Amino acid sequence: MQHIAYFISDGTGITAESLGHSLLSRFSGVHVDQITLPYINTIERATQATQRINDSADSMGTPPLVVISIVDGNLREILRQSKGVILDMFDAFLDPMEKLFGQTADYSAGTAFGMAHTNYHQRIQAVNYVLENDDGGNTKNYATADIILVGLSRSGKTPTCLYLGMHFGIRAANYPFTEDDLDESALPKSLQPFRDKLFGLLIAPERLASIREERYANSRYASLKQCEFETRQFKARLERYKLPYLNSTHLSIEELSTRIMDNVGIERRVNG
Amino acid sequence: MQHIAYFISDGTGITAESLGHSLLSRFSGVHVDQITLPYINTIERATQATQRINDSADSMGTPPLVVISIVDGNLREILRQSKGVILDMFDAFLDPMEKLFGQTADYSAGTAFGMAHTNYHQRIQAVNYVLENDDGGNTKNYATADIILVGLSRSGKTPTCLYLGMHFGIRAANYPFTEDDLDESALPKSLQPFRDKLFGLLIAPERLASIREERYANSRYASLKQCEFETRQFKARLERYKLPYLNSTHLSIEELSTRIMDNVGIERRVNG
Repeated sequence: MQHIAYFISDGTGITAESLGHSLLSRFSGVHVDQITLPYINTIERATQATQRINDSADSMGTPPLVVISIVDGNLREILRQSKGVILDMFDAFLDPMEKLFGQTADYSAGTAFGMAHTNYHQRIQAVNYVLENDDGGNTKNYATADIILVGLSRSGKTPTCLYLGMHFGIRAANYPFTEDDLDESALPKSLQPFRDKLFGLLIAPERLASIREERYANSRYASLKQCEFETRQFKARLERYKLPYLNSTHLSIEELSTRIMDNVGIERRVNG
Repeated sequence: MQHIAYFISDGTGITAESLGHSLLSRFSGVHVDQITLPYINTIERATQATQRINDSADSMGTPPLVVISIVDGNLREILRQSKGVILDMFDAFLDPMEKLFGQTADYSAGTAFGMAHTNYHQRIQAVNYVLENDDGGNTKNYATADIILVGLSRSGKTPTCLYLGMHFGIRAANYPFTEDDLDESALPKSLQPFRDKLFGLLIAPERLASIREERYANSRYASLKQCEFETRQFKARLERYKLPYLNSTHLSIEELSTRIMDNVGIERRVNG
């Protein structure tokens, strides 16, 4: 049977969505269409959302799942009257928190990301650092890096660095291992003073070839043979230099970023 | 009184953290140190986490708040024996979901971000698009953009575009309004065919000056007078061209990105 889930929030919708994804991942066999409705912060918008939920219930013949992250009690009440099965985040958890903190929760407006404001600056600076130190273009700034990702061309270094900067305020540089670097037996000169900051990203040759193929079709660079050669050489280098590394082939950007931090034991500078 | 909160997960910790932030934002007067413990996926790690919770409880004289996103029942049971006040995500919500879907939840391993794998490729492509079309460097690709952010130099266009690409798979380009553009009465030529994709980012002159000052201290470019002039002119242009825009001064990257999507009505291509 086909199901539908709504993630409804008075803010960005990111928390409701994230919670909803986690919960739905426990029902792998169930097919669920997922719709996020952010900024449901007026009676009019809440009424429209309720109508949409009810229309879905009628057309699908089954109640939609509705994950709610809304502070205002009146708006929540409107949604609660819908035909959906309501999972209300605040309803479920604020009670024990009120007891613990000895004060009642504040039901006025303002979203979770208000907390991120104080970190905004640090995150932007980290993103700028990543952009300026991407792809080995600027090795002179390695001294101020928190981490330096090393990997083959197109192995996912840049998106991972950007995620580390944007979400955790980490200054992440990256260095692409070229064929020349793979020919040398020593660690590239510009990396030698920063051994402790290096972290390798490995990727399966088949996946690397398919990513490269998209960019430079039918090139030697994108050939499976070349990718197999580079991957094998690079892995041998990582092991010889005794660098920590992860295989990125089957990991999402989130998983890769958080595992790297967990592996090297860097603290999150901010929580984005 | 000083409190402490642990966000504990068998995966990245992103969901537990996001949920915890949302809940804590309702208690603005309470000071809470926040610690994320990701990849708590073995009995050993769960036992260590429990010990850490208990140490906090003893040293602070109050139970820590513990938000848990862990699938395995044995690991959850270990944490439940701690001295923390436990908010268990799965415990709270899986029951109504099991009833709705008519099947029991799957308690085997695998994280929420498994769902993101199918989108990985699209997100990486969007991030690459953003990097290649940053800062007006490559106006020839505007035809394939989902959105083109316009704003003054250092007004937050790039991080916002990166967020849109990384999390929603949106191809976001950006174009910096220079003084020359502000002198012209017409919309810059390279933007004219793409009016419908344009979205303005406005920023308070004081904030702009402080951001620019960091980069080019004591320059005319960073002076408050110059920033006031550019901001005033740019706002007048946005209104003359009748472009939608947001003031980014007090918004987080998440809020800015999701509000832009909400304003222009683009659908999230993926849910990162």
